[in-house]
Amino acid sequence: MSIPFFKQHEKLALHSKLNIVKILDNIPFNDDGLIPAIAQQYDTKEVLMLAWMNRVAIQETLQTGRICYWSRSRNQFWRKGEQSGQVQILKNMYLDCDGDSLLLLVDQTGPACHTGRRSCFYHTLKCDHSEINSAPIIDPDTLYTQKT
Amino acid sequence: MSIPFFKQHEKLALHSKLNIVKILDNIPFNDDGLIPAIAQQYDTKEVLMLAWMNRVAIQETLQTGRICYWSRSRNQFWRKGEQSGQVQILKNMYLDCDGDSLLLLVDQTGPACHTGRRSCFYHTLKCDHSEINSAPIIDPDTLYTQKT
Repeated sequence: MSIPFFKQHEKLALHSKLNIVKILDNIPFNDDGLIPAIAQQYDTKEVLMLAWMNRVAIQETLQTGRICYWSRSRNQFWRKGEQSGQVQILKNMYLDCDGDSLLLLVDQTGPACHTGRRSCFYHTLKCDHSEINSAPIIDPDTLYTQKT
Repeated sequence: MSIPFFKQHEKLALHSKLNIVKILDNIPFNDDGLIPAIAQQYDTKEVLMLAWMNRVAIQETLQTGRICYWSRSRNQFWRKGEQSGQVQILKNMYLDCDGDSLLLLVDQTGPACHTGRRSCFYHTLKCDHSEINSAPIIDPDTLYTQKT
């Protein structure tokens, strides 16, 4: 059995470079052609959300510097902020050791969450209960009516 | 059509509580019964890795305070550090707005990555190339031979 691409390159020295086409060709996208992408605010380091990208969304995001996901619910490209005005600008994109997860360092305008909260991770889980840990910073009823 | 559980609870006030069984019953696990879980170092806020949990792994992690994932490659529970000694202690667990992603604030001993690097996200992606952005902090050849 051949050694997987990312396994082959685990011991590369710091600052070694690989061709982006080789990288994209070897990402083990799931059955829907998608890979999970974590969005983290670049300066505060708050984790804002997790969404999904396909190959074209990765390429578009790298080329334009504006985050483009694939919406699984709408089954179409989702250029973050196109409806709400709350855009995400790319600062840096990282791929993990197995090539199956992305980390996006972004600059998020306003709330990342469709509920108007800054972060989507607003349920704190404990052994016997969950608790709402944040409040909206924008009224969600106005979020999708503000045209930019 | 009924309103999904997490949609119903979007407007709950800060500090509102829900029963954990209700939460777990309504998580839309994927076809393999899994949900992605981001591990973030609690003090430096570095994103370390993304792995997967099933319902039992979530419950065990909440109860024991030690991170337990589900390994998709080995098809078994993966108590982080059981082989390498590089454990993850849970500080806080969060669920997102749609109930389909977890964020784990952890205290990671040593490297999170099996390559000996602190974080798994060591490929920086650019338009035309990728670059290795970090070096191992422990020689990976010794990582899985150190018994604790």
